[in-house]
Amino acid sequence: MTRVVMKFGGTSVADMDRIRKVAQFVQREVDSGNNVVVVVSAMSGQTNHLVDLCEQAGPSKISLDAQHCEYDAIVATGEQVTSGLLALVLQQNGYKARSWQGWQIPLQTDMAHAKARITAIPDTNLGPAIDGGQIAVVAGFQGIAEDNRIATLGRGGSDTTAVALAAAIGAERCDIYTDVDGVYTTDPRITKKAQRIPKISYEEMLEMASVGAKVLQTRSVELAMAHKVKLRVLSSFEDPDIAIAAQLKGTTGTVICDEDELMEQQIVSGVTPSKDEAKISLIAVPNEPGRAARIFILLAEANVNVDMIIQSPARTKDAANISFTMNVQDIARAADILENAKDEIGFQELTADNSVAKVSVIGVGMKSHAGVASIMFQTLAERGINIHNISTSEIKISVLIDSEYTELAVRALHHAYGLDAAAE
Amino acid sequence: MTRVVMKFGGTSVADMDRIRKVAQFVQREVDSGNNVVVVVSAMSGQTNHLVDLCEQAGPSKISLDAQHCEYDAIVATGEQVTSGLLALVLQQNGYKARSWQGWQIPLQTDMAHAKARITAIPDTNLGPAIDGGQIAVVAGFQGIAEDNRIATLGRGGSDTTAVALAAAIGAERCDIYTDVDGVYTTDPRITKKAQRIPKISYEEMLEMASVGAKVLQTRSVELAMAHKVKLRVLSSFEDPDIAIAAQLKGTTGTVICDEDELMEQQIVSGVTPSKDEAKISLIAVPNEPGRAARIFILLAEANVNVDMIIQSPARTKDAANISFTMNVQDIARAADILENAKDEIGFQELTADNSVAKVSVIGVGMKSHAGVASIMFQTLAERGINIHNISTSEIKISVLIDSEYTELAVRALHHAYGLDAAAE
Repeated sequence: MTRVVMKFGGTSVADMDRIRKVAQFVQREVDSGNNVVVVVSAMSGQTNHLVDLCEQAGPSKISLDAQHCEYDAIVATGEQVTSGLLALVLQQNGYKARSWQGWQIPLQTDMAHAKARITAIPDTNLGPAIDGGQIAVVAGFQGIAEDNRIATLGRGGSDTTAVALAAAIGAERCDIYTDVDGVYTTDPRITKKAQRIPKISYEEMLEMASVGAKVLQTRSVELAMAHKVKLRVLSSFEDPDIAIAAQLKGTTGTVICDEDELMEQQIVSGVTPSKDEAKISLIAVPNEPGRAARIFILLAEANVNVDMIIQSPARTKDAANISFTMNVQDIARAADILENAKDEIGFQELTADNSVAKVSVIGVGMKSHAGVASIMFQTLAERGINIHNISTSEIKISVLIDSEYTELAVRALHHAYGLDAAAE
Repeated sequence: MTRVVMKFGGTSVADMDRIRKVAQFVQREVDSGNNVVVVVSAMSGQTNHLVDLCEQAGPSKISLDAQHCEYDAIVATGEQVTSGLLALVLQQNGYKARSWQGWQIPLQTDMAHAKARITAIPDTNLGPAIDGGQIAVVAGFQGIAEDNRIATLGRGGSDTTAVALAAAIGAERCDIYTDVDGVYTTDPRITKKAQRIPKISYEEMLEMASVGAKVLQTRSVELAMAHKVKLRVLSSFEDPDIAIAAQLKGTTGTVICDEDELMEQQIVSGVTPSKDEAKISLIAVPNEPGRAARIFILLAEANVNVDMIIQSPARTKDAANISFTMNVQDIARAADILENAKDEIGFQELTADNSVAKVSVIGVGMKSHAGVASIMFQTLAERGINIHNISTSEIKISVLIDSEYTELAVRALHHAYGLDAAAE
């Protein structure tokens, strides 16, 4: 008997009708002879409602940690309800099932309430339960901290729960059901020629997640990579019978696995736009040791995550222009912090630009193929698209461009790297 | 330092504004130097919403117990949310507070999921926590069963939680905050002359609760009586400053305590109507051993709770008429059961009557005062009110009358026993 973990997100369990559909996917795995752990999120909208109640209470005057403990106890109820409801539906369909809260497994976490990290999952309760033929429906996003209190795992917590459980019980695979039928070569809203990627490496998926492909949270992919958990992205929004037949034929879904398991490596697997970018440029920062460091220390202290740093000579003598990008949410705060430190840093002028976008090409094949960057630059140049900043990793090249060119750039690159689907 | 338990029901925590009011009542106890445990219900309406979700899932084909386990996990989230929110509000006001779920205390129960009974509450966690100056906000209505799963306590579960905790930690008193300012001599909607009862014995309160005074659940009063927990019924719906001043002066609320502590015993403490009554009469049941027993065995098997049984000679020879009352909800079911067993029981005719009401007079003073019953019968006779059935206990006399006379009977009895408030 093989063990399998399945995870269903908030839109997949949005109401009782959808939960009944989820049950059909789960039952098929059981009918195939697998021992199943199911991880569920809260019904969509429920987490926001609970967070809103917490915010109405206002910040704690006692301690942030005391506040986070209560936030966790409140928000975790969303997943607790869904896990119970799915267990009830499975029972109604004649399947043995029970819900598991994080503290019952136990899924142990550190003490960082509201953004806890998983520290250990003993296999003493859950494994034997499913091997006895009972479906385990686990409330995602939560565990129990050393203080014997509920701790939630922060953004992407349910994906992370699923991968961690898969690692803990030695599952053959971890299927992440969502509202799309796999990972695509680019955003299908930008070009209809986007293709589903049947198989992709952890590293590529990580880069795609980090630049805005929202199918999986970066954190869960990292965990899967570390523990060699084979992930599949699948849709829970198709008719279960059709979807399950397609799963068996491999004509739906995306497998995320070790690079070694990829038979034929694409040079470029995907082209990913990210519009949540913003750029700050500091003009004429004195060329003295410590000035640049000071900029990034101030921003780091304010939890502003900085990307794509470029330093170039300024027109002023012995000075440089320094520009960098960040999430657009952070730009007002970042600009304030830097303006307040203007004298200390010594720059002449600060310019902030929201109208930029990052476009990335990603592929493990880059490691062994030259010329990937030159195709990118040439393709963009032919369309008259100016590149502001560039950053690269072993398997990714990102460029910052004016955001109005985003779709044009994505379509052109998608074509240039041979990713376009054949016309139907 | 004295320990105090406070309990707030669903209407008292219906929204954030009401929860902020609750916090003021709690803070006053802390400011007076008491160590406080607060027990909260779910926000009003929330439990019904969760129960509705459970019902949509349908009955379990696996086992009723499996179904009840999930029901418990789902429905218990209502109290979990409220306990967290009240803790957050107390923290926001600068008070040390934390929420406690049943499994954290632990409040141990038996395995009767969905209607569990409390088996033990070790004082190892909660007591030391509040003696350290932290307010404990406990999610009512729930504990942890021997299977390490959440178990809810059924109707009145939050009152019962409060009383059980008060007994476990040796609290000086257990204050039950609700939407009325105490227990009244009768329903104030029937007569404006109803008076608040400043002090009442457990036994009287039990009888009043059992005949429809909804302020406290019978079960929690029984538990308080068994453990000598001094109860107070108070309103959370007045302005907290005014209400707290009135509490100090004793001009609000009702204390429920041991009979010995009542300084001056009223002969009759209250007159209680109950309109949820219905009566079945079986005409001409053969006078043979086992016939009557069979009737009540059949009803007991169907969980129909029978009250006020009367047997009288029938016109037919060697036969008796048997009549009895029950909750009006059960009458259709009870009539069906009996009609199906007509041949077996051997009665000639069944009549069912929904238009009856029970009126009870209650008072510990009855034990030592004769003539209480005769005043009742005379008072009703003077108003031309016919009595169908009578039942008595040591401290209660109940009569069954036509329901159209209910208010008239209550007002007449309230006056006859000297309970009317002086005109203002």
